[in-house]
Amino acid sequence: MGGDHGPSVVVSGVSIAIGLLRDVPVRFLLHGDEALIAAELNRHPLAKAVCDIRHTDKVVAMDEKPAQALRRGKGTSLWNAIEAVKTGEAQGAVSAGNTGALMAMSKLILRMAAEMDRPAIVANWPTMQGVSTVLDAGANIQCDAAQLVEFAIMGEAYHRAMHGVARPTVGILNVGSEDQKGHEEVREAHRLLRESNLDMDYRGFVEGNDLAKGTVDVVVTDGFTGNVALKTAEGMARFFASEMRGALTSSLMSKIGAVIASGALKKMRAKLDPSSVNGGPLLGLNGVVVKSHGGADDRGFANAIKVAANLARSHYAEEFKASMSQLGDVLVHAPAEARLAGSEETPE
Amino acid sequence: MGGDHGPSVVVSGVSIAIGLLRDVPVRFLLHGDEALIAAELNRHPLAKAVCDIRHTDKVVAMDEKPAQALRRGKGTSLWNAIEAVKTGEAQGAVSAGNTGALMAMSKLILRMAAEMDRPAIVANWPTMQGVSTVLDAGANIQCDAAQLVEFAIMGEAYHRAMHGVARPTVGILNVGSEDQKGHEEVREAHRLLRESNLDMDYRGFVEGNDLAKGTVDVVVTDGFTGNVALKTAEGMARFFASEMRGALTSSLMSKIGAVIASGALKKMRAKLDPSSVNGGPLLGLNGVVVKSHGGADDRGFANAIKVAANLARSHYAEEFKASMSQLGDVLVHAPAEARLAGSEETPE
Repeated sequence: MGGDHGPSVVVSGVSIAIGLLRDVPVRFLLHGDEALIAAELNRHPLAKAVCDIRHTDKVVAMDEKPAQALRRGKGTSLWNAIEAVKTGEAQGAVSAGNTGALMAMSKLILRMAAEMDRPAIVANWPTMQGVSTVLDAGANIQCDAAQLVEFAIMGEAYHRAMHGVARPTVGILNVGSEDQKGHEEVREAHRLLRESNLDMDYRGFVEGNDLAKGTVDVVVTDGFTGNVALKTAEGMARFFASEMRGALTSSLMSKIGAVIASGALKKMRAKLDPSSVNGGPLLGLNGVVVKSHGGADDRGFANAIKVAANLARSHYAEEFKASMSQLGDVLVHAPAEARLAGSEETPE
Repeated sequence: MGGDHGPSVVVSGVSIAIGLLRDVPVRFLLHGDEALIAAELNRHPLAKAVCDIRHTDKVVAMDEKPAQALRRGKGTSLWNAIEAVKTGEAQGAVSAGNTGALMAMSKLILRMAAEMDRPAIVANWPTMQGVSTVLDAGANIQCDAAQLVEFAIMGEAYHRAMHGVARPTVGILNVGSEDQKGHEEVREAHRLLRESNLDMDYRGFVEGNDLAKGTVDVVVTDGFTGNVALKTAEGMARFFASEMRGALTSSLMSKIGAVIASGALKKMRAKLDPSSVNGGPLLGLNGVVVKSHGGADDRGFANAIKVAANLARSHYAEEFKASMSQLGDVLVHAPAEARLAGSEETPE
């Protein structure tokens, strides 16, 4: 029921996801208004064959505060979707709804794995090399050094499980590459990762331009910086697309040129299409939860489903557990204040 | 003598800047190795006619720590360039050299205007609407609310003086637009700007995607976030350019299309060309100092010269003084802790 478009995008997204996940038998529980969902399913027979509707007429509004959503959340479509992961009826939940409510309910229902404070959201970042894992993309507005170390460990486990890279490279986002650059938190996390005996290919600090370059597989940052960087890049992508559209329709000659080069331009657009990387897993929970962009179209939502399905089928849970068991060793090196609890901020 | 290319780019940049500043009589003092500079000037007769060489064989290395550069800085080309602004012999200084040393020396020689702690660096950000003023782009890694308010005031004065906009719109960069979003510092700065009687068109919070959109004229942020956002955008721009080049040379058809559309594509590239926005003024000093990107080419350096010349000719100094006199009124609303001194970080 969530997102800017509700069931129409979700059901059409399911239909597309079936194609994306061709070799994987996948079934869906669709939580929400039965009449609305059934009407959409009638337009998508492929989806209808693999979907069960779980009716509820309670929904979480997109602008509801997380605390309020929690209080009256039980029985909403969002709650039921996460609850199904808890009971084992579903192997993962996907939502385009209220991010703050999704985070809060996921934490309450599924609980955090290990001693983590709250989940981190992953952004799958298209780069010149392929795709990088960037976290946190906005859940934890202020992060201490210990949290950044947790993100490094979770992100590395995620990247290995999802992309089959045996030893993903890891970096911390900073304003320069030297040890003394940046603020206390990044310097301390840098020191902890350097001095620990973690089995991790930690490469040190990276900068903003390394995101598009794909210098490392996993980029660690606090949720404030990660959110700004992600939205800045999205804004630049739209700017660039609009400039290109403008240039290629500015004259008869440019239009002719664009038609002739259209095959190559189409391929390029597909590669840079934001829907191809939509779907940010919430890491740190006992269970798979994936956030779709609220404004995602059906192809974008299908990609979020693909991310959830692949994550559920992967060895992420074991990778994560094994890696987190190393965390204690790292934080032995941490001063007491680096162990303080994380932020109380409300994410988007 | 600074930057990745030294005098060759500087002298060629001067030559190009003369063209950019056609209607403005402008003369140059070139500080550095006389033999090297003279050799370059012989290749640029246009520049030679308006340049005086101020010889010194002392230079600040690009990787020198600011503290070290300060200790042995006297008499270096960087020092002498800033000193010339102090004495009034020059109306502005431009350098592609060591940013940390430039900041530290500028602060020592020119002193901060008002009670500011250290300068903020402006990024001139190309947007769908034109150009926005984004600050701080990397000088102040950690900022309290009072500093963010100072950036708003300085940035607004700068934008008005440089772009002739009577009432520039101002926003604070955050992870969402609601009052309760973000960390303590941005929320407090937001409150101060909202509740003050500043004569400013303050529009509230903006997000990363608003940078390319050009939603507001002046975007206020701490130096850590600003630096990451700026470099993220630069990285994305290079990524797109490389993808486009790749697409338009991928087949005979796309090559033919690209040739036919080349006029329009060239115009687009010019608009998105980073050299067209190179040159970040250091605001808050008693005098004009502009930082050029170390890797800038001669067109980029010429643009940094243009920024310095336009800033020196503008009413910025008076605008700034008038605006800063309002600052006291704003900070009356600030709790004591928001008046704590700024960061001790070393910028790039």
